[in-house]
Amino acid sequence: MTMRRWTMDAIGRDRLSFGTAAIPDPGPGEVLVKVAAVSLNYRDKLVIETGMGLPLTFPFVPASDMAGSVVATGPGADRFKPGDRVISTFIPGWIDGLNAGNARRPPYKTLGGFHQGVLSEYIAVPESWLAASPASLDDEEASTLPCAGLTAWFALAERAQVRPGETVLVHGTGGVALFGLAIARAQGAEVIVVSGSAEKLARAKALGATHVVDRTAGNWVEAVYALTGDRGADHILEIVGGAHLGRSIEAAAMGGRISVIGVLDGFEVSGPVGPLMLKGLTVQGIGVGHRRALEDFVRAVDRLALKPVIGARYGLAELPEALAALDRGPFGKLVVTMG
Amino acid sequence: MTMRRWTMDAIGRDRLSFGTAAIPDPGPGEVLVKVAAVSLNYRDKLVIETGMGLPLTFPFVPASDMAGSVVATGPGADRFKPGDRVISTFIPGWIDGLNAGNARRPPYKTLGGFHQGVLSEYIAVPESWLAASPASLDDEEASTLPCAGLTAWFALAERAQVRPGETVLVHGTGGVALFGLAIARAQGAEVIVVSGSAEKLARAKALGATHVVDRTAGNWVEAVYALTGDRGADHILEIVGGAHLGRSIEAAAMGGRISVIGVLDGFEVSGPVGPLMLKGLTVQGIGVGHRRALEDFVRAVDRLALKPVIGARYGLAELPEALAALDRGPFGKLVVTMG
Amino acid sequence: MTMRRWTMDAIGRDRLSFGTAAIPDPGPGEVLVKVAAVSLNYRDKLVIETGMGLPLTFPFVPASDMAGSVVATGPGADRFKPGDRVISTFIPGWIDGLNAGNARRPPYKTLGGFHQGVLSEYIAVPESWLAASPASLDDEEASTLPCAGLTAWFALAERAQVRPGETVLVHGTGGVALFGLAIARAQGAEVIVVSGSAEKLARAKALGATHVVDRTAGNWVEAVYALTGDRGADHILEIVGGAHLGRSIEAAAMGGRISVIGVLDGFEVSGPVGPLMLKGLTVQGIGVGHRRALEDFVRAVDRLALKPVIGARYGLAELPEALAALDRGPFGKLVVTMG
Amino acid sequence: MTMRRWTMDAIGRDRLSFGTAAIPDPGPGEVLVKVAAVSLNYRDKLVIETGMGLPLTFPFVPASDMAGSVVATGPGADRFKPGDRVISTFIPGWIDGLNAGNARRPPYKTLGGFHQGVLSEYIAVPESWLAASPASLDDEEASTLPCAGLTAWFALAERAQVRPGETVLVHGTGGVALFGLAIARAQGAEVIVVSGSAEKLARAKALGATHVVDRTAGNWVEAVYALTGDRGADHILEIVGGAHLGRSIEAAAMGGRISVIGVLDGFEVSGPVGPLMLKGLTVQGIGVGHRRALEDFVRAVDRLALKPVIGARYGLAELPEALAALDRGPFGKLVVTMG
Repeated sequence: MTMRRWTMDAIGRDRLSFGTAAIPDPGPGEVLVKVAAVSLNYRDKLVIETGMGLPLTFPFVPASDMAGSVVATGPGADRFKPGDRVISTFIPGWIDGLNAGNARRPPYKTLGGFHQGVLSEYIAVPESWLAASPASLDDEEASTLPCAGLTAWFALAERAQVRPGETVLVHGTGGVALFGLAIARAQGAEVIVVSGSAEKLARAKALGATHVVDRTAGNWVEAVYALTGDRGADHILEIVGGAHLGRSIEAAAMGGRISVIGVLDGFEVSGPVGPLMLKGLTVQGIGVGHRRALEDFVRAVDRLALKPVIGARYGLAELPEALAALDRGPFGKLVVTMG
Repeated sequence: MTMRRWTMDAIGRDRLSFGTAAIPDPGPGEVLVKVAAVSLNYRDKLVIETGMGLPLTFPFVPASDMAGSVVATGPGADRFKPGDRVISTFIPGWIDGLNAGNARRPPYKTLGGFHQGVLSEYIAVPESWLAASPASLDDEEASTLPCAGLTAWFALAERAQVRPGETVLVHGTGGVALFGLAIARAQGAEVIVVSGSAEKLARAKALGATHVVDRTAGNWVEAVYALTGDRGADHILEIVGGAHLGRSIEAAAMGGRISVIGVLDGFEVSGPVGPLMLKGLTVQGIGVGHRRALEDFVRAVDRLALKPVIGARYGLAELPEALAALDRGPFGKLVVTMG
Repeated sequence: MTMRRWTMDAIGRDRLSFGTAAIPDPGPGEVLVKVAAVSLNYRDKLVIETGMGLPLTFPFVPASDMAGSVVATGPGADRFKPGDRVISTFIPGWIDGLNAGNARRPPYKTLGGFHQGVLSEYIAVPESWLAASPASLDDEEASTLPCAGLTAWFALAERAQVRPGETVLVHGTGGVALFGLAIARAQGAEVIVVSGSAEKLARAKALGATHVVDRTAGNWVEAVYALTGDRGADHILEIVGGAHLGRSIEAAAMGGRISVIGVLDGFEVSGPVGPLMLKGLTVQGIGVGHRRALEDFVRAVDRLALKPVIGARYGLAELPEALAALDRGPFGKLVVTMG
Repeated sequence: MTMRRWTMDAIGRDRLSFGTAAIPDPGPGEVLVKVAAVSLNYRDKLVIETGMGLPLTFPFVPASDMAGSVVATGPGADRFKPGDRVISTFIPGWIDGLNAGNARRPPYKTLGGFHQGVLSEYIAVPESWLAASPASLDDEEASTLPCAGLTAWFALAERAQVRPGETVLVHGTGGVALFGLAIARAQGAEVIVVSGSAEKLARAKALGATHVVDRTAGNWVEAVYALTGDRGADHILEIVGGAHLGRSIEAAAMGGRISVIGVLDGFEVSGPVGPLMLKGLTVQGIGVGHRRALEDFVRAVDRLALKPVIGARYGLAELPEALAALDRGPFGKLVVTMG
């Protein structure tokens, strides 16, 4: 029995090839999952193109986020049964509390990185690496939760406490940003979306953004002051990174919190220390999150009928087209549908 | 009745003059304090030399931190009575919870800045601006608590939770650093002091530092890894600032917390986003703290018999010598003794 | 210039009398407020009937919660100007952080208790005792926020962190309960309302309750298990008190939080220690809250267009009728409208 | 190869028998531990005498807390190697964050309860059920950490934040109480020990208690007021339970925290709601704690050289004598030494 999958034999987008392999058997404690949909993250692009310094094993299957159904269970595996709909966890083994690792070697043992990825019709993984899918989402939608969705949830609902009436500022309209918009609205917050595209801002407004700010139209920090009566934003999802953190520090309210999530603008963040100190700000690094928080998020998705925003869908063979769309900066998530 | 005091008629160290003025009367809700000792902060030097952009009123009395005794009370003032020993609060009016201010104008309404300072034999101030002195300290010692002491306390005991057995890393051997050392030891933590002076490190060791690291002897981050078995430091008092924050991010443990306190190396901090995210770090800006925390700190000082480290003492007329010592980077605090 | 007001010359409902007094002048730091509406709490009934052990000063004006407009300001008062719409704070002087008081004498210095109350056409109070009214509410609605509204807010949004998708359980359909319902819904939670009246449950459902449970129809704890798939309630507003706390402990989820608010069933609470320990529950006493939280709540009310539920309205002369309605256990709040 | 162990064939102290069994083989993911010492808890007595409603499997080996050394590892087990010194976890499988279970069935799956216990010369258990022993303690001392030690640590250092200068109140001089004394002192707190035995109080004083209160000498709550200048105790380890919780509520400071730990006085706690609300108290149920906290505690024990207090030691055959000593209420822990 064979299956189709994407693999790389070396780092580089040109080393991707679409081929076949034997369907694996689930080992002790493992389950075999028929993958139905895979959601792509900007990080997958970085891994494919640069390896990100990770110890990849070739042939390497990229991508981390999938939704599918259990088709078989290995010896001793009893968390799921055949037919159960499941999603992957971005950082397998991080169940709750603090992640493993240390100061010298912070952990980055993710699917489609340290571990093999999910762009494959079947995967066999330890049962602890999976969470139940939300009943209210189809597989394409559910596949967007493990990384982009959980990152926004972990920042706003697990590590921060967003109170009704507070202001949440979201940079851009990518996957994490639009999840942040939806989650913050569910928390009773006002949401300001800052983007450079009038068309994307209009779509964000239609999705529930309280205010939108076109950063090409002037100083967006001043716009935030104006929209909040100088109070500023209580929570900021800092997705751009780099020196942009400094602008977020300026835009933050007294006692505000900035979640550092993104590396779009480079791997070094910087900002002014004066307002950081005088406002008593908290800057928190968010490295996705643990399985318990993903399970909390799944429950919230079901209860609140939150709908992930899918920018475009691709067939399994269309991975190159999906990566090209990732290059252009999509509105919401890109999903590869299997079979 | 006249008193002696230091004033400036314009910004600049050369505009300091030592003169006399009438002893003020305490107005409604005010108390008159006979100042016994004034502790100097690096910030006082910056205010004197640059004004720090503050709306100074000339003639301007510098310095924020004093200890003294109440000698008279104005109408309606009943928190203190004549003879009570008191210390100033660095940010008058910040009693508890969140400070006033907003995103556009974070508050910096301190004594010896927005407000007149304390380098004066008498001051008349609202009674809410004062806290009771610790009984276990003399006035010279007590004068060091309002800014340097409270900053370390607010970082480690109010906003962080240092647990016994954790590792606290302190940069340097100035006032905040040595308070941080004493407080973290009182919390049951191991303390690593990093400094460029072997002689100062030896003194830090004598004061209770668990480990000392000479940053001129090699890569201090590697030294922290070695001392902690790669775990890293759970809490870091980042007093240097600038790009040094990046090194602290590298030295921090999983889930660690970095308190940004200092501006010695400039007003822009920067660091790598990778370990910030993967370790799930919290970077918190500390702008001194509120009166309730100062009162908690005073109680801890008394109960634990904590002793501030005074590097040198000066007479009231010797302010220039004290400022020159501040230029050289003292070990502990510099105190001006009145009368 | 005289005004009408309610006073008591001794403890007891029969000692209430409706009379006139001189309109007070605002002293230093005070403002004169023309009261537009007063909201009654169950506590007001207890104070009127029993004094609650408080050191009342006769003639005593009852009631704590009012909305009105500033008509004059005393010397030095600058937080408000004539025409500003304001509401009272239940515990004057508690601005933020921890309230004053100690173990022996916990503070209960409220309006209409330790301090004179607000059932008067005009009151002169320190400006710090007031907060700005929400723009989206009229005075009758706004008068319900200082005690009942803030209690629910303080329990759910200030001291707890309710996450989207969690379950909040509310006992009854009184003022705090219905505010709790609205606030928890704004936080993205599912809300279960437990009451003994089918008619009130139908109204709670119409107000947005996810589930309602009639406690006269069987074991309401079992109903909560059934509604949550045995997970239980993550947050519980325990408004009944007494041995009822024990049932709430049984109904609580792992790691859940119970806010103890009410004294309807007596001044002694009790419950089983087993599930308290094994679930790792937190039971928090809520004594209304501070002014900063009230200001946060006012902002949330405006931004989310939350509408207090007013069960009935009375003219100023109709206080006896209002108290009789309070005896019967109203749905939502009872408001006395001035003039 | 056989080993000695204690088993019960039914509930009841008279059903204990000392016999032999085959030394088990470690299965997949398991390790074989040679048990060196077992520490007894009051709970063990309850399990032996009443079963506590647990689904015991007979023959049943009692007791939960042991220290020993790994002698063999099963397939796939790699957390420990032969020779490693280890201690048990009280609640196997609770690694970090929130424990499993739900409202209807809070988890009580402990060693020597739901699972077989450790009063056996060898045990084979999943490697995840163990933590590394502190290097600074011998096995007898180390065996006291998993339940009594961790309970005090979890209450004071994991779920509470004890600040230097705060007051911690400990009831009694049993195992949890004396660990609480040591941990709170390590946190810089003052500790008040309340007990009915002058001799035990003298020993507690020698161990570092700041103040001791003889509850047979009068109203201990008044004594706490007197010792703290009416401030009260910031943290209380409520080990007695029952109506005693009410006295702890009276003794607690504004904003204080009470950890409910014990069932000595029955399974129902009660207390006055007035001070609970007016002081804004937090009452937290403590059901021991998770492995990550145990590892934190082990590190603290090593770094601070904390020494458990062992009241008496018994040989393996002397279990009846040890249980008799447990009946009498020991000072500190009772330890059974193997071999």
